[in-house]
Amino acid sequence: MRAIVLSGAGGVEVLAEEERPTPEPGPAQIRVRVRASALNRADILQRRGGYAPPPGAPLDIPGLEYAGEVHALGPGSTLWKPGDRVMGIVAGGGHAEFLVVHEREAIRVPDRLSWEEAGSVPEVFLTAYDALFRQLHAQAGETLLIHAVGSGVGTAAIQLARVAGLTTYGTSRTPGKLRRALDLGLDVALDASDGWAGLLLQQTGGGGVSAVLDLVGGAYLADNLRVLSPRGRVIVVGTVAGGKAELDLGLLLRKRLHLIGTVLRSRPLEEKIALAREFSDRALPLLEAARIRPVIDRVLPFSAIRQAHQVMESNDTFGKVALVWSNDE
Amino acid sequence: MRAIVLSGAGGVEVLAEEERPTPEPGPAQIRVRVRASALNRADILQRRGGYAPPPGAPLDIPGLEYAGEVHALGPGSTLWKPGDRVMGIVAGGGHAEFLVVHEREAIRVPDRLSWEEAGSVPEVFLTAYDALFRQLHAQAGETLLIHAVGSGVGTAAIQLARVAGLTTYGTSRTPGKLRRALDLGLDVALDASDGWAGLLLQQTGGGGVSAVLDLVGGAYLADNLRVLSPRGRVIVVGTVAGGKAELDLGLLLRKRLHLIGTVLRSRPLEEKIALAREFSDRALPLLEAARIRPVIDRVLPFSAIRQAHQVMESNDTFGKVALVWSNDE
Repeated sequence: MRAIVLSGAGGVEVLAEEERPTPEPGPAQIRVRVRASALNRADILQRRGGYAPPPGAPLDIPGLEYAGEVHALGPGSTLWKPGDRVMGIVAGGGHAEFLVVHEREAIRVPDRLSWEEAGSVPEVFLTAYDALFRQLHAQAGETLLIHAVGSGVGTAAIQLARVAGLTTYGTSRTPGKLRRALDLGLDVALDASDGWAGLLLQQTGGGGVSAVLDLVGGAYLADNLRVLSPRGRVIVVGTVAGGKAELDLGLLLRKRLHLIGTVLRSRPLEEKIALAREFSDRALPLLEAARIRPVIDRVLPFSAIRQAHQVMESNDTFGKVALVWSNDE
Repeated sequence: MRAIVLSGAGGVEVLAEEERPTPEPGPAQIRVRVRASALNRADILQRRGGYAPPPGAPLDIPGLEYAGEVHALGPGSTLWKPGDRVMGIVAGGGHAEFLVVHEREAIRVPDRLSWEEAGSVPEVFLTAYDALFRQLHAQAGETLLIHAVGSGVGTAAIQLARVAGLTTYGTSRTPGKLRRALDLGLDVALDASDGWAGLLLQQTGGGGVSAVLDLVGGAYLADNLRVLSPRGRVIVVGTVAGGKAELDLGLLLRKRLHLIGTVLRSRPLEEKIALAREFSDRALPLLEAARIRPVIDRVLPFSAIRQAHQVMESNDTFGKVALVWSNDE
């Protein structure tokens, strides 16, 4: 099979397409013929050598999500039949023509979604769904601040929060991304270049927000605590602005705040299955009804993987960079 | 009535006993004739000027807990009758001969407890109960690290955790306090002078603990994160070692940790009532059966309030410094 392979850690020159053995599905697994995937910030980190795959994941084939057809069933696998359209997250190996997963990790692809749309769903919608509903326990009537609102997770979170009856505030340094986020249902756009914390407190009459979805980290932490209302919660999903921050413990106590760290990739199988099943029950109907939809900045063939990485690193994207296998490559 | 009054912010010289008007119970309130109270770290902070009482609390009468007899009923108050023995927390005013509280904030005093024992229960047992069971959701089989294990909250937490089937690790800088904590049911004592984090990881085969009850703050935060197992939780109840700390956000994410700040004093009435009622249902039977008991370092009359503050500031106490009103003062 064709696969994107990392020859080492570094710039985009370490990425290349190579032939690799097609994986065999084990007990309760399925083999998926991947039609589309997408790029994630973690793929960039992994390429640079800063995010090793967890045990069990392919060491040198990146890629954290997929959409494709069930191609073969492992022993005892009963949930799918060959040809079924499925999608999901993997701890690595998503940027290959074939991959194997436990059958219960796979999620049905709604008929209305194209391959590139389906391949752009799993990481950002599972991350946002898990963060908002399983960890922040966000509920109708609450207010939510979303950082990096033009990112894949940001665009997913705006839509899920809107469906759930939350009022959303979103930050970005790029006015164009803020405009597109408003089109997507964001309630209040905050220019991160202008000191978003002050703007937010102004917009909320000093009351702040009840929850924060933070994909930025670093110095944003102090302002997150500042804009949270009493008993507020912040979940940190990414730390692109830095992995260390000074924490005001006194403020954490006085406001009785909750600070939560999360990651999907290293979770054990049983947790990934639980999330995939719950997402299938609750979020698939929203995708089918087009109440939520993947936001795709552009679609590139896997043969342009280096360009795809460069595009993501430019930070000029709004939503996902999708990747597709084309037959004539 | 007699009351301990703060004439300003400073050393123990700002504390004095004065005459104040006896408060009148409002609707659904009771007036309590206070027989005993105890000293808390927050009383020291308030005396020094660093912890103003929340709105509605007496401005210059400190004291956060009480035990005494119901003395008068406000309009519509039906839960108690005069002479009933009650105890509870207040946002201030506990160091006076009389105080008023909402009738549903008061907790029945078990027959077996003396006044000084009852007056030493509310702050530390409500704090520990709330932290362990309502916020950390600690469950049988889990491992819990308790800092400042010789403090009032520490001695309460050891006992509650033991009853609930947790394995406890406790830190203190004082060997004598660690010995007494072991007598109280602590499973593993860690000398905080010796680098408790390394000792703890050694004791747990590198696995760490599932939860931390932190009364220290400051530099302990980094080590708390280090010793927590994946999905671990830390609740910070006090920051005597400092209110600022560097936080390793990357570690918070990778381990998927929860960091919780909490305080009782400023909570709204309905939350205090909910806690008092739940504590009455679940923890009073444990007090009645002597499965948990207040640990009292010494009992002093309110006339020795300055000495009481000095004793607590010495950090030489194990458990509570109780205060009682004597009739011959």
